[in-house]
Amino acid sequence: MLGSEPLLSRGSASARAVFERRAPAWRDELRRFLSFQTVSSGVGQRQAMYGCARWLRGELCKLGAKNARLVRSRHHPAVVGRIPGPPGAPRVLIYGHYDVQPAESSAAWRSPPFRPTFRDGFVYARGASDDKGQLFAHLKAVELLSALPGKLPVTVNFLIDGEEEIGSPGLARVLQSSSAELASDVAVVSDMPVLGPDRPSLTHALRGDLYLDIEVSGPAGDLHSGNFGGAVQNALSALVSVLSMLHRADGSIAAPGFYEDVLAVSARERAYMRAVGPKSEEIQRETGGAALTGERGYSPYERSTIRPSLEISGLRGGYGGRGVKGVIPAHALAKLDIRLVPQQDPDRIHRVVHEFLARQLPAGMRLCTRERMRVPPVVLDRDSPALRAAALAYRAGFGKAPVFIRLGGSIPVVSLLANQLRLPTVLMGFALPQDGAHAENERFSLAMLERGIWTSAAFLQEMARV
Amino acid sequence: MLGSEPLLSRGSASARAVFERRAPAWRDELRRFLSFQTVSSGVGQRQAMYGCARWLRGELCKLGAKNARLVRSRHHPAVVGRIPGPPGAPRVLIYGHYDVQPAESSAAWRSPPFRPTFRDGFVYARGASDDKGQLFAHLKAVELLSALPGKLPVTVNFLIDGEEEIGSPGLARVLQSSSAELASDVAVVSDMPVLGPDRPSLTHALRGDLYLDIEVSGPAGDLHSGNFGGAVQNALSALVSVLSMLHRADGSIAAPGFYEDVLAVSARERAYMRAVGPKSEEIQRETGGAALTGERGYSPYERSTIRPSLEISGLRGGYGGRGVKGVIPAHALAKLDIRLVPQQDPDRIHRVVHEFLARQLPAGMRLCTRERMRVPPVVLDRDSPALRAAALAYRAGFGKAPVFIRLGGSIPVVSLLANQLRLPTVLMGFALPQDGAHAENERFSLAMLERGIWTSAAFLQEMARV
Repeated sequence: MLGSEPLLSRGSASARAVFERRAPAWRDELRRFLSFQTVSSGVGQRQAMYGCARWLRGELCKLGAKNARLVRSRHHPAVVGRIPGPPGAPRVLIYGHYDVQPAESSAAWRSPPFRPTFRDGFVYARGASDDKGQLFAHLKAVELLSALPGKLPVTVNFLIDGEEEIGSPGLARVLQSSSAELASDVAVVSDMPVLGPDRPSLTHALRGDLYLDIEVSGPAGDLHSGNFGGAVQNALSALVSVLSMLHRADGSIAAPGFYEDVLAVSARERAYMRAVGPKSEEIQRETGGAALTGERGYSPYERSTIRPSLEISGLRGGYGGRGVKGVIPAHALAKLDIRLVPQQDPDRIHRVVHEFLARQLPAGMRLCTRERMRVPPVVLDRDSPALRAAALAYRAGFGKAPVFIRLGGSIPVVSLLANQLRLPTVLMGFALPQDGAHAENERFSLAMLERGIWTSAAFLQEMARV
Repeated sequence: MLGSEPLLSRGSASARAVFERRAPAWRDELRRFLSFQTVSSGVGQRQAMYGCARWLRGELCKLGAKNARLVRSRHHPAVVGRIPGPPGAPRVLIYGHYDVQPAESSAAWRSPPFRPTFRDGFVYARGASDDKGQLFAHLKAVELLSALPGKLPVTVNFLIDGEEEIGSPGLARVLQSSSAELASDVAVVSDMPVLGPDRPSLTHALRGDLYLDIEVSGPAGDLHSGNFGGAVQNALSALVSVLSMLHRADGSIAAPGFYEDVLAVSARERAYMRAVGPKSEEIQRETGGAALTGERGYSPYERSTIRPSLEISGLRGGYGGRGVKGVIPAHALAKLDIRLVPQQDPDRIHRVVHEFLARQLPAGMRLCTRERMRVPPVVLDRDSPALRAAALAYRAGFGKAPVFIRLGGSIPVVSLLANQLRLPTVLMGFALPQDGAHAENERFSLAMLERGIWTSAAFLQEMARV
């Protein structure tokens, strides 16, 4: 009986048979899933969002959920549903999202972003890897297990977000309003890449995020740069001037106290990162050939994971149109994206950055900083039973033990699950770095889909034994 | 008979009577003129531009022009028309422009920019003072003189530009294609302020202008600031960094060679400027209370007239919308407005600035600078008969002799008329420093409109006697 096998493996004949029998139908289902235009930041997408959410509810019902339903959130509904396992079995929360990044129809897309196209072992579509394809792997893993003699050995609670790409503004409320039915012993989030098709990796750390609007303004309106050029303070110049001081020549951030609470990472851990993490050439390839730079004494992988960063994500001031307009701008706005590491306190960092900028500001100018988003950093315990189970599952799905990696990004739901709900959380990615999440020609490897299904199924089985 | 009076004065009973009789209609005409949305830098303004140009042609016809017509230019037509005076009379070219600066509808405008509003002795509208109101004074001066027994004592050639705010790119061609009908003995340009309502002033010097687009770009598209923040070059940061180096701490411009060809102004001239020019407090008031700053060793008046300046007039890079988007921008664009003084060579200054920026640019970034506009500086002969006539006219219109001042702005047509066509040129401003040209709530004083009409009429009479 499969339930008593040490681990569901791809070699299990009965599981393999089920898989092969159902695979053609799954392909059609994935095509259907990917064809919903679920751009959460768009306007007029209500029909697509609800259409997709209802389709997902139907899928959960087919898997045996009794209570699958749409849950009201800030803008777009979440979908929740419980697939019951044996009485008393561990409860696993699987998080995914059905909303996607915008996909302007452009010549850069070889096939239309919402007409899923199977080509050369990939499915091409907006959301193929981020995050519909990864979520789909879990859905099919549950289906696969349910069809086997051992049945589903754990209870699976699906939580499917419709607002991830816009910062999951309603997710805390969804968790609250569905707390009883979502109550779980462990959480799985699959919304990230592994290092490569044959390099399974488990993400155990994410940076936090503090996003600030920085506004500099003078007392008056825009002035004529002919009449007054050379004689008055220019708010845009003032903003440019203070922003230029934020980084030192050695790439470090100059605001005093910025690094004060940064938790040092041990030499042993850094050696491990060097050994298993992405090499500088890989990171550069992923960027499409950008020039690497950053804080002296750290590798690109370290700079983007264990060190905090401060990027100017946007700036607007004065005239930005075509041709000429001779003005001395009266105000200018910048957007600072600060990525945090443990133990940096967002309030303190906000204050430190504000004070540094304010101190450098030329006389006669006002500075205003506003927090637009905050996400705490996350570091997961690699020795937790959940992560150990995940490692075993990857070995089953990929035929190879995973390494542990850190990601520079921030995933609000992970902070919520791991930090706030104190739920053991596993970040179980099935995407590839080259999948083009957020870019044109996004795709998902069908081989990775298959590995994802086996890995998820193995994880659920393994969790039943923990 | 009025023609034989020494000078048309506001006390002349017959002229006064005509003025009073026509003033209410003029108010309606001015409202109509100001309501055309003649933003020359905008797109889709073709209808407004042609509407206004045709309206002006109609006005010239009403004044007695036989040949008033629209003349094809680069983007928007010019309007030319000759109002004939007595045979053999001097020919006066009056230049004005009907195009205006952009006026983004915003809360800062107390009344919509293209719904002219009469309030507290002013008319508020985009273009009220720059330049429709000032041009309107000349139109009404010609109408006034024509209605008096002495009739119009000179031939007036109107040249009304539709592209002044975008650098008058087609004006040289317009002057060429209409050279016969525009042939004149003297030119008047009214597109500047006097020192104050009771401080008439004649402008005898303008700075030149060199407007550059500065673009910095990296090799790839925007990157995710979570995944890569801290590890790659940020094009927006690179632009901010090089722009911040353009000024030294003492307010001077740091690009080597920038000041090399600057013509020094004599101590005597600087003493005259100190005596009659605007005081620092006035300049500050004009700015609406902006903080004064600039090159050490020069007064604000000097900094904005006899010294060159370099202002960042605009900057765009990365995300500028509401909320958050975590990107590392791949390119960023700034607009530099450089005001030139004699003998600075625009080509050399462009090269000097480009080389300075390029030298400071971080590795892996590309810099591209493009010239968007150039206007040479102008210095007029204060002892010319035309300027002496203008001084007498101001005395008639304002009841007070004018002083000579310098302006920091640049007027392409003045460079063309004075430098290229070698035409004695008068800069006869009727605007006030507080009018808010190029800013929100632009306005024109109705008292200044009246003085402008009397001054223009007196000048035309005076020119008949030169």
